[in-house]
Amino acid sequence: MTTVLAIGTYSETDRAALERDLSPVFANGPGDIAALPGEQRQQITALAFTGHQRLGSAEMGLLPNLGLIANYGVGYDAIDVAAASDRGIKVTNTPDVLTDDVADLAVALLIAQGRQMLPAAEWVSTGNWAARGSFGLARKISGGRAGIVGLGRIGRAIANRLAGFDMEIDYTSRREKETPGWTYHADPVSLARAVDYLIVALVGGPETEGHVSKEVLAALGPRGIIVNISRGSTIDEAALLDALESGAIAGAGLDVFLNEPNIDPRFLKLSNVVLQPHQGSATVETRAAMGQLQRDNISAFLNGDALLTPVN
Amino acid sequence: MTTVLAIGTYSETDRAALERDLSPVFANGPGDIAALPGEQRQQITALAFTGHQRLGSAEMGLLPNLGLIANYGVGYDAIDVAAASDRGIKVTNTPDVLTDDVADLAVALLIAQGRQMLPAAEWVSTGNWAARGSFGLARKISGGRAGIVGLGRIGRAIANRLAGFDMEIDYTSRREKETPGWTYHADPVSLARAVDYLIVALVGGPETEGHVSKEVLAALGPRGIIVNISRGSTIDEAALLDALESGAIAGAGLDVFLNEPNIDPRFLKLSNVVLQPHQGSATVETRAAMGQLQRDNISAFLNGDALLTPVN
Repeated sequence: MTTVLAIGTYSETDRAALERDLSPVFANGPGDIAALPGEQRQQITALAFTGHQRLGSAEMGLLPNLGLIANYGVGYDAIDVAAASDRGIKVTNTPDVLTDDVADLAVALLIAQGRQMLPAAEWVSTGNWAARGSFGLARKISGGRAGIVGLGRIGRAIANRLAGFDMEIDYTSRREKETPGWTYHADPVSLARAVDYLIVALVGGPETEGHVSKEVLAALGPRGIIVNISRGSTIDEAALLDALESGAIAGAGLDVFLNEPNIDPRFLKLSNVVLQPHQGSATVETRAAMGQLQRDNISAFLNGDALLTPVN
Repeated sequence: MTTVLAIGTYSETDRAALERDLSPVFANGPGDIAALPGEQRQQITALAFTGHQRLGSAEMGLLPNLGLIANYGVGYDAIDVAAASDRGIKVTNTPDVLTDDVADLAVALLIAQGRQMLPAAEWVSTGNWAARGSFGLARKISGGRAGIVGLGRIGRAIANRLAGFDMEIDYTSRREKETPGWTYHADPVSLARAVDYLIVALVGGPETEGHVSKEVLAALGPRGIIVNISRGSTIDEAALLDALESGAIAGAGLDVFLNEPNIDPRFLKLSNVVLQPHQGSATVETRAAMGQLQRDNISAFLNGDALLTPVN
């Protein structure tokens, strides 16, 4: 009897491991649940979930015996957790295993933007270096003041790395936290005003939507660089595009966008950005660890053991 | 009376500052010294130097009253320091002020190579993300073992940064140094065998030529990534190209090459490299500090004060 439904696109490795360990039914997205035979839907007790399509109360209602949604990824903003809780459905995610990768990319995005590494690489590959001489001067990154927006696991990992670059660390968070002398700001405008770089490491979802507002970007100012490795929704994207186009901020390193992968074409016309295709956790090592943790949560649930990384 | 000769290409800012502070004669390269009038050559006591063309004993001999060569840059391998010493000529460089920038670039080169940031950026800019889906998986960088070849100021700054990425640090150097628990290797083959990443931070010049040899590259192995921010000469470049082409090592992040800017065209055909146009210290802030330190050394010499950063 099939009790597990796997929703979303899995790598070959993860798909094979799911089949081996849990023999699930596969579906492309939440919209495909309704098309499953009623008897099959009755049998599903656990759901392996990946992707950014909304999994809401209506979809959960189609699986009357569902007890677990095991998300692949630390961000579970696609899942209506409140609705799940109301229905007695537990939600798990895959924290910690991806923290390092996301923090690495955040640091590299900051340096790559400030040091103009992409146009500098193009200067070499096009032969301009030999034909036209030196590339020109970029901007020093070490020694600046870094503002972390959201000091959770990933924000803290970024701050720890940047501290090694002789940076003073400021942060904003729901409440002040235990830190090695980092400066707390209650509101993001105050944070943005104090720093050279703003690194956004918030959770996604409605409560952080547009948290980095037009006012925050104005406070960051024309020398400011913004890095976002969280969710496109955490920044007012229209205001960000305006600020990048007008020079109201200096530049951005972005791994996340609204409407991925169909991102706003205005981004592609900018020369002061480094754009990545939401690859924060996209390493062989980390994706393997994420898949393992997702399956381990499902196995724990099916065996009646304690969940490893519960969300609700 | 003009007592200062400025050799090489200076930025507008540096040229203006040189003129303001030291009223020098300008020449493009060491090869132009001979063309200066004999009387002018007699008067020159200090030389502001930048560039990678050889400044040897013969050129020094054309300036009989030369007492100082003030190099712009930390690496002074273009200058025959032994010949200068023999002639009683002091040499200065510009250490420390560029350490941070070079170390920043080294870290970013490592992450950019491992995380495939350039092809990932192209995946976005070409519209492949929207048209063809996810970019694919790269390689985790945090938590690896890093080998620093040459633990001088810059090597140490790189190691300090990488330690913040949960990396174990190994190094090789002329002798074992005081470190926070980093592992010393007497020879670079042993170092390369022990680590995942090899970051070359040697001084240039004949004594380090080809220090990273074919054997070192073989010991680094097919999962190894090499980063070079020192001088092209420190690596056996033909062996490096062979290793990159054959997959004997995984990839490289390179800011320096033999025969810059006319680099070997084999580099441009590789897909496992991140290439930069020798921009390690090329930031507005650092180049200003380097120019200031060069001029301060010359002023100190002309005033009979102690040199700030003597080499010999």
